[in-house]
Amino acid sequence: MNYDAALATAIDRLHAEDRYRTFIDIERTRGQYPHAVWNKPDGSTQQVTVWCGNDYLGMGQHPVVLSAMHEALDATGAGSGGTRNISGTTVYHKRLEAELADLHRKEAALLFTSAYIANDATLSTLPKLFPGLIIYSDALNHASMIEGVRRNGGAKRIFRHNDVTHLRELLAADDPAAPKLIAFESIYSMDGDFGPIAEICDLAQEFDALTYIDEVHAVGMYGPRGAGVAERDGLMGRIDIINGTLAKAYGVMGGYIAASARMCDAVRSYAPGFIFTTSIPPAVAAGAAASVRHLKTDQGLRDAQQTQAAILKTRLKGMGLPIIDHGSHIVPLIVGDPKHTKKLSDMLLQDFGIYVQPINYPTVPRGTERLRFTPSPVHGPREMDTLVRALDGLWSHCALNRADLAG
Amino acid sequence: MNYDAALATAIDRLHAEDRYRTFIDIERTRGQYPHAVWNKPDGSTQQVTVWCGNDYLGMGQHPVVLSAMHEALDATGAGSGGTRNISGTTVYHKRLEAELADLHRKEAALLFTSAYIANDATLSTLPKLFPGLIIYSDALNHASMIEGVRRNGGAKRIFRHNDVTHLRELLAADDPAAPKLIAFESIYSMDGDFGPIAEICDLAQEFDALTYIDEVHAVGMYGPRGAGVAERDGLMGRIDIINGTLAKAYGVMGGYIAASARMCDAVRSYAPGFIFTTSIPPAVAAGAAASVRHLKTDQGLRDAQQTQAAILKTRLKGMGLPIIDHGSHIVPLIVGDPKHTKKLSDMLLQDFGIYVQPINYPTVPRGTERLRFTPSPVHGPREMDTLVRALDGLWSHCALNRADLAG
Ligand SMILES: Cc1ncc(COP(=O)(O)O)c(C=O)c1O
Ligand SMILES: Cc1ncc(COP(=O)(O)O)c(C=O)c1O
Repeated sequence: MNYDAALATAIDRLHAEDRYRTFIDIERTRGQYPHAVWNKPDGSTQQVTVWCGNDYLGMGQHPVVLSAMHEALDATGAGSGGTRNISGTTVYHKRLEAELADLHRKEAALLFTSAYIANDATLSTLPKLFPGLIIYSDALNHASMIEGVRRNGGAKRIFRHNDVTHLRELLAADDPAAPKLIAFESIYSMDGDFGPIAEICDLAQEFDALTYIDEVHAVGMYGPRGAGVAERDGLMGRIDIINGTLAKAYGVMGGYIAASARMCDAVRSYAPGFIFTTSIPPAVAAGAAASVRHLKTDQGLRDAQQTQAAILKTRLKGMGLPIIDHGSHIVPLIVGDPKHTKKLSDMLLQDFGIYVQPINYPTVPRGTERLRFTPSPVHGPREMDTLVRALDGLWSHCALNRADLAG
Repeated sequence: MNYDAALATAIDRLHAEDRYRTFIDIERTRGQYPHAVWNKPDGSTQQVTVWCGNDYLGMGQHPVVLSAMHEALDATGAGSGGTRNISGTTVYHKRLEAELADLHRKEAALLFTSAYIANDATLSTLPKLFPGLIIYSDALNHASMIEGVRRNGGAKRIFRHNDVTHLRELLAADDPAAPKLIAFESIYSMDGDFGPIAEICDLAQEFDALTYIDEVHAVGMYGPRGAGVAERDGLMGRIDIINGTLAKAYGVMGGYIAASARMCDAVRSYAPGFIFTTSIPPAVAAGAAASVRHLKTDQGLRDAQQTQAAILKTRLKGMGLPIIDHGSHIVPLIVGDPKHTKKLSDMLLQDFGIYVQPINYPTVPRGTERLRFTPSPVHGPREMDTLVRALDGLWSHCALNRADLAG
């Protein structure tokens, strides 16, 4: 067995399909974001503007977050030193969980090391709690939900993306007495479209199913207190389990679910991905809690972000560029094949100091390869002008179609 | 379907088996560890000594770690703002990976959010890279390895704990041409016994299998530069993939694998648990890198820790208490049932301010429930005296057997 050759084959496959990922090494400077330094492979550096980060509101450099982290480091040290059960539960973790439960108006919240593991661990544990559980999962759910649904080989049904008619058919076809759960997202991060929350809640009620929503790209961003799209639409109380991250709009790291006290207690007690891993550092929990608390009231930051997204979309549409616009804060520009996407990304970076990563299969379906822009309140008019002009020029240069690829 | 009743049933089962976990909320004070404050459920507080943390060397409060974290926070901010591929690779992540590759004398290292996810993601991805892979897994492997081996339903064989004869039988029974991997630990954290690294490497060579070792409880602690037991025993070069954590002896958070450049590149490219999650905060990476670097030379800290463990074991054995001693730094005291273990833990905490969590099924097999002590260089003679005397008294008080339960 030639193991090395097998690895080479696996890697070559990615090169052949033009979807080998090259990480760009960037160094943010506190207070300067979205400006950053690109450390090039040859050792030289270049100033760049980050246009693809998920620190949507710039909270990763917000003074309330940083001072909470400095304080916790000074007060308590670096790591937690244990799993949640074995010496790794601190007042910082408890406070953050209380902050999150309050955010979502739920009885409890449960902290994980990431939203990835929160999805994976929770969705793979629910079939243990509800024997015979059938999970109905949107076809475009995030990898972490797919992994969780798949993990233990429980019953699953995949409904076509956002297709509540299909979902209804699937629900109606199953044993009415079987426990059921519908898993979906409030914002699908690669297209920026919204899940049909109200319709799914109606179906859940009709078929006596639990609801599980991933609000990873919405928490901090939507709703009067930043609790997400379900809050904005007055539907939070109809969702049984809300999943969110502390690593995107909140600017730090970590993930969670918010649910009933009993649900959190059961997941806490049965999920290996929660139990058998060191809890997040107290300073990370402190920074995240400060961020969540701050964004409960800072509506101005949310508004500024939406304005920036609207301006960018208007300008790109005005030039006939094929962006997808579902009214969310995400601005995907469809290129349609991996080679051109990579080329555009490379040219933007090298020639214009604009950093936007190409998005390829399997993150998005083949043929929909794209550049995904994430404007934020810290991207000023100058950065926006530079971006729009660069895209206009490159689009012509590469003789790409305008408008007809738009979704 | 009564979902709430199902949750109650699941939780009641744990109470009935006396293994419902109650988290103890503690607050470490930088510079005072192992002393900490216990925030009791009734709102009052009590000074305690932590005897069950995995911050084995006290690095979680070491000035080199804390100042690296403060500096990175000041320089770059809180979170990374993205997945490794999409704006979340920074010079801090690269430096830490270089530090870890150097530590293990491997071409490369790959950082994950935890060693849990490093195990789970790597072991579940290897069958994609080596079609038909058979994984031979030690029966007492950690939950994260079990989850990874199970996840994709690939072929697996479980060999009896540390039983190389059994492992040989299993290897010999399979197709010689099939790709194979042996997954095991260098130190099993609940018993503190060592894996037979040399024998397993011999078998791997004979049967042309890859080797995968979890050194989570050994990195920082063993070997002249803290690279683990394989380093101590001069066997590091014979291991294909080394897994470690930055959250125990290194005192911070995060996990990794170290391996050939090609292996790391392939796992990096194919593992959803690596790809689809936000990278660790730069400050966490900076703290971890400082800790790894420091422990490459601070042999004194390692020696002091081993001395403390030896003293504690000698004293407990002297009193006839049934501890397990395999010569490692872990001191498990077998109680043998969950009720007594919880009782002892409660009395130690309430009456003596000694915090040691009961360890129950499924973390350890039923009938071997235990208290697991983790002495460190920061536990002084006074703390040790208090512990030994308290245990002596309680052991008599509870009329527990001496010696005959020892493993
Ligand atoms: C043997 C072993 N492997 C892996 C892990 C996971 O490490 P981490 O805390 O970094 O997730 C642990 C404990 O947490 C462990 O004991
Ligand atoms: C929809 C969705 N869910 C979950 C996650 C995972 O979040 P985290 O980065 O906290 O692991 C992501 C992205 O990372 C995501 O896009």
